[in-house]
Amino acid sequence: MIAALDAFGSDNAPLPEVEGAVQAIKENVCEKILLVGKREVLEKELKKFDYPADRIEIVHAQDVISMDDKASTSVKKKKDSSLVTASRLHKEGLADFMVSAGNTGAVMASSLFTYGRIKNVMRPAIAMVLPTLNRPTLFLDVGANVDCTPEHLVQFAILGRVYSRFFYNREDPEVALLNIGEESSKGNELAKKTYSMLQERNDINFVGNIEGKQLLDGNVDVVVCDGFVGNVMLKTVEGVAMMIMKMLKEQIQKDWLTKIGAFLAMPAFKYLKTKLDHSEYGGALLFGLNGNTIIAHGSSNSTAIMNAIKFGSKIAESGFIEHAVESFMVE
Amino acid sequence: MIAALDAFGSDNAPLPEVEGAVQAIKENVCEKILLVGKREVLEKELKKFDYPADRIEIVHAQDVISMDDKASTSVKKKKDSSLVTASRLHKEGLADFMVSAGNTGAVMASSLFTYGRIKNVMRPAIAMVLPTLNRPTLFLDVGANVDCTPEHLVQFAILGRVYSRFFYNREDPEVALLNIGEESSKGNELAKKTYSMLQERNDINFVGNIEGKQLLDGNVDVVVCDGFVGNVMLKTVEGVAMMIMKMLKEQIQKDWLTKIGAFLAMPAFKYLKTKLDHSEYGGALLFGLNGNTIIAHGSSNSTAIMNAIKFGSKIAESGFIEHAVESFMVE
Repeated sequence: MIAALDAFGSDNAPLPEVEGAVQAIKENVCEKILLVGKREVLEKELKKFDYPADRIEIVHAQDVISMDDKASTSVKKKKDSSLVTASRLHKEGLADFMVSAGNTGAVMASSLFTYGRIKNVMRPAIAMVLPTLNRPTLFLDVGANVDCTPEHLVQFAILGRVYSRFFYNREDPEVALLNIGEESSKGNELAKKTYSMLQERNDINFVGNIEGKQLLDGNVDVVVCDGFVGNVMLKTVEGVAMMIMKMLKEQIQKDWLTKIGAFLAMPAFKYLKTKLDHSEYGGALLFGLNGNTIIAHGSSNSTAIMNAIKFGSKIAESGFIEHAVESFMVE
Repeated sequence: MIAALDAFGSDNAPLPEVEGAVQAIKENVCEKILLVGKREVLEKELKKFDYPADRIEIVHAQDVISMDDKASTSVKKKKDSSLVTASRLHKEGLADFMVSAGNTGAVMASSLFTYGRIKNVMRPAIAMVLPTLNRPTLFLDVGANVDCTPEHLVQFAILGRVYSRFFYNREDPEVALLNIGEESSKGNELAKKTYSMLQERNDINFVGNIEGKQLLDGNVDVVVCDGFVGNVMLKTVEGVAMMIMKMLKEQIQKDWLTKIGAFLAMPAFKYLKTKLDHSEYGGALLFGLNGNTIIAHGSSNSTAIMNAIKFGSKIAESGFIEHAVESFMVE
């Protein structure tokens, strides 16, 4: 697998990208990486590392799309940006997938303009796998579509199902609807209509509503929701996890006995930190497009970039796009 | 302050209610409690405790509204239920506030039918104070109104402001809008319209959008959102906290060294547990009605019931209703 990596996406770009690419090659998570961005800068950074030189190739791109740039206009204007160039390399078949830690809106716009939507897909969605107590659960949409119709949510369910089947080999993935109660009568207009539409589909194993309390139990494969609710939910998960770790840390510092205790219990804390750390997850996926795009967190470190490349490699290998195209042909 | 306590609301009713009432009287969180429900059962339970007998009075009510009962119809039908009777005692001025750990929908319906809305308030809301890293933050709506208009959210902001001023003595409470980004252009239609309406109000100190990540930082006084998003958010907070505690517990059990460590660090864990435990919070509040109703969690233990009574007592003392009525007169 060959990755196209936007080297000027993250908050600390290009350092995490360059180091992440080197790590990815050393750990053999893909065969080759096209590192996209300003040649001189990247050459200088790459020189600091020791790696098989033929497996990281710099592709020059002069422009950079910043976090403050307006998504759609910047993508149209800055055709020579690292982001748009990386998308194009994937579109042209020179790379099997694209990774960027840039502005989510811009990454979505660049991917959408470059590869286009899968036929019959109304809206692309952002999907994310969250840590759970049991099996991994995919959530979508977590931010692309703030105002959705029930039809959009049904399509998200189909995309989630395809992912779960071919990425996790789940034969008949269980799909749930994020709602505020278990009964079919619960929720807002969108949730109620989506519930009845999902229930009517023979091709979706719809298991009913799921509440915030059960989200991270990991007893379903896919959870669908509109992008506004999904984004609030996702960031709340992050916020609560951060708050708890901070409170625990503060309390532990209070006296020497708790400090010793915490030192002895360190493996448990380390496990928790790893489990909750976004850099251990591959990042978010764009679903519904004719191409594989992985969006890494803006604050990504090199490990997060490496894991995003690993994730992209697996997604491309799973043939997700081809299977998704097929699922929407029968629509 | 005199409390009307629905003794047949919680999952394990009436045990937590009876014991909670005794605790509340012993700790002097209010002067008197009207314990509402089946007289024989309550008399038998109360006999197990030693307490100043003149400060807990049983008010007989034959019926019980269960968790499965349909909210509005059961409230209309079961006029002799413990819930409706408790609401009536407050309405008639025999109690200063009402507490129930019953079915949220039914408690809302009973309160609405009995006291009615404050003049000019379009929709009552459920409000809740969450644990944060800094000052307490009030969230509303967390479940009463699943489909809202911007006007509803502006009214929630006014109610939240009144609460924050008179309960926490915040002179000019900071009000934020739950959204998926900081900029005014972010969010769904509801969020964008609400943002511009809040910005135009001179009587609300609107500080802009707040994201899920910052919700529990405790840097604002009031956060407004629609009841669907608020309920998902609230239950997600609960779900994540439970998951983290469970993961930590599992990991700590893994070997004797981490077990000893955890034992020494126990005060830190205990602090965290208390901070996150819903029984330490007073429960949810109904806002926008001509009466003070506190909804305790269905799984409340006696401490949770006692804290709900304490909360109700403070709310009634703060004169929240009178101030809210005043705020909506100028509307």
